[in-house]
Amino acid sequence: MLNFDFYSPARILFGKDMEKQIGALLKPHASKVLLHYGGGSIKKSGLYNTVTTSLKENGLSYVELGGVVPNPRLSLVHEGIALCKEEKVDLILAVGGGSAIDSAKAIAMGVYYDGDVWEIYEQGKAIEKALPVATILTIPAAGSEASGDSVITNEEKQLKYGYGSPHLRPLLSVMNPELFYTLPKNQIANGVADMMSHVFERYFTNTTHTDLTDGLCETVLKTIIKNAPLVLENPGDYDAWCEVGFGGTVAHNGLVGMGREQDWACHGMEHELSAIYDVAHGAGLAVLTPAWMQYVYKDNVNMFVQFAVNVMGVKGSYRDPDAMIQEAILRLREFFNKMGLPATLGELGIDASQLEVMAKKATGAAFGNEAPIGGLKKLYWQDVLEIYKLAQ
Amino acid sequence: MLNFDFYSPARILFGKDMEKQIGALLKPHASKVLLHYGGGSIKKSGLYNTVTTSLKENGLSYVELGGVVPNPRLSLVHEGIALCKEEKVDLILAVGGGSAIDSAKAIAMGVYYDGDVWEIYEQGKAIEKALPVATILTIPAAGSEASGDSVITNEEKQLKYGYGSPHLRPLLSVMNPELFYTLPKNQIANGVADMMSHVFERYFTNTTHTDLTDGLCETVLKTIIKNAPLVLENPGDYDAWCEVGFGGTVAHNGLVGMGREQDWACHGMEHELSAIYDVAHGAGLAVLTPAWMQYVYKDNVNMFVQFAVNVMGVKGSYRDPDAMIQEAILRLREFFNKMGLPATLGELGIDASQLEVMAKKATGAAFGNEAPIGGLKKLYWQDVLEIYKLAQ
Repeated sequence: MLNFDFYSPARILFGKDMEKQIGALLKPHASKVLLHYGGGSIKKSGLYNTVTTSLKENGLSYVELGGVVPNPRLSLVHEGIALCKEEKVDLILAVGGGSAIDSAKAIAMGVYYDGDVWEIYEQGKAIEKALPVATILTIPAAGSEASGDSVITNEEKQLKYGYGSPHLRPLLSVMNPELFYTLPKNQIANGVADMMSHVFERYFTNTTHTDLTDGLCETVLKTIIKNAPLVLENPGDYDAWCEVGFGGTVAHNGLVGMGREQDWACHGMEHELSAIYDVAHGAGLAVLTPAWMQYVYKDNVNMFVQFAVNVMGVKGSYRDPDAMIQEAILRLREFFNKMGLPATLGELGIDASQLEVMAKKATGAAFGNEAPIGGLKKLYWQDVLEIYKLAQ
Repeated sequence: MLNFDFYSPARILFGKDMEKQIGALLKPHASKVLLHYGGGSIKKSGLYNTVTTSLKENGLSYVELGGVVPNPRLSLVHEGIALCKEEKVDLILAVGGGSAIDSAKAIAMGVYYDGDVWEIYEQGKAIEKALPVATILTIPAAGSEASGDSVITNEEKQLKYGYGSPHLRPLLSVMNPELFYTLPKNQIANGVADMMSHVFERYFTNTTHTDLTDGLCETVLKTIIKNAPLVLENPGDYDAWCEVGFGGTVAHNGLVGMGREQDWACHGMEHELSAIYDVAHGAGLAVLTPAWMQYVYKDNVNMFVQFAVNVMGVKGSYRDPDAMIQEAILRLREFFNKMGLPATLGELGIDASQLEVMAKKATGAAFGNEAPIGGLKKLYWQDVLEIYKLAQ
């Protein structure tokens, strides 16, 4: 186990009717709130009404900024920063999925940053301060409700960068699984692929003596693999949603990766797809992850045998580990397929024309400062290109 | 899964040499520190020197109060409160195990309480405020380094009460497994029994649809059961200590019990042993837990079969669940025995004379306001007495 620093202060208020308490929950921390959300779905569902009523009942004033889209845009972040400054907002409430929350975090730190907030993402600048962010989650996927991470797309530059800081950990997050009942099936599936990837990125490691976090990772993965098909089949299955929803939080609040060298190559490779083709993050991950496994597993066969046995339930001859691993990758593909997720770049509408460009961007080679990505196996742009090709 | 409120903000700084950073870690939060510890062991080990040097180097002044004993005493808490007020202390640093930390938490809230801090424990009063507490853990056991709980013994009244509040969650806790190398074997064993009990109290539940937290509980238990004998055998086994140490934190930071009705009967029954006989908490738990299992399992056979299979690795005929459960309880007893823990009240020096008195105190019957304890099975004083008798 490696040394680590674990800090996950976001308070999680979980269960039925929790969103009705939002005003009371925020009252000790705010006087003027920026309500930040996506399209009109929260208005249709009545959630917008519930939230604004609760804010008003608790004497909180608010301004609002809707219009967050998947792969949230820098331009809207700029708008939010200006609005918060102008209106003297002291807390941002994101109502939505990872995109609304990530956008809120960008605004929250942008308010205190003297310059274009994009510089923080581009240069990995340390920040000292951000407005507090609270969330009401409507799409379990990104884990952003407890994480200190934010991913923003610079649509002009076709760049999608992530940034993390303890200052970006939400103050509190409300999760009522009933709010997930109306999600379209493809959003459910994309979310599941994303949260599984958050575990995979931490699970696949060369670090040894990691019994506890191995088991935590495996538990989260098995819980999601068992319950995700249930919610896809019946989006009103409260019990199954509880498992998937809280699983998505635990997948990305930091705990399951403590003391382990982490990987994050699949996320890095996927960001390039989203940046150019604007594909759904989870769909991109579902396509890339099995290809990545196929390309890297020989570098740590034991790790992948453990995955095969403990997560995918493969029984076989340990004298033929390759066969066990192939079976595990096949089962993962079958699971993604059952969830209705794409299996190839072609299904995402991505042809061969930009593969090399994306591979070079993923490792920084495109900008003349290549640094290999990935923990389990270091990947240079040529490796990334091979993985893209395997995913075609 | 039940609704829940998860809040575990304690920052955990884990690994080699972390204690050397304590001054730098506390500097943003304090100017005058109360250094709170137990006997002289931290002076012998050099830890006292490391800590005070680091405080001084970072410009922090400190006063100190040693003398915390296992089952920490109210009288020392009173002394600490007076000292903090007099010296205008703004942060308490507990260096030690659960006793030092629990004592620090009592002082931390006592400073702001207008009256005897014991009233908070006795009457379960809500608190609004406490001094920040930081910890350097030298005994992994109580989980107090991340929890909001404190257990204090009123030696005059022979009462041992626990209290919990989010305000008591430590600001940060340092855990360097190397500091555990010099622990006596009985302290290691007691600590292991305590942390396992923290999971048991959450794991054994009648709440259904708890895949995720079931798995988290089972992972922590299996990790401890695997690694605890390794550290007992070789107290310098860093890797095994990492698993046991961080396992003890995860066992009690709240996560593994979220959304579940919890039990806590064994802790309640054990506190009565400690209050009168001053036995080590973990040793008392090791004696009572198998007896409790024997007494309650028929109320939820499926839960105990799951324990048998998923935690204790029992293979058997599911058509004879009693046999599987008996095998699981036997294996747990054997594990405690291998750890050198006692198996009977007699080994703890407890005879039959006070069993009824303790049973009536445990449920409140002694004070004329009986409320049954335990979540999986409600236990009245007659039940508790039966369990004490089974443990004789």
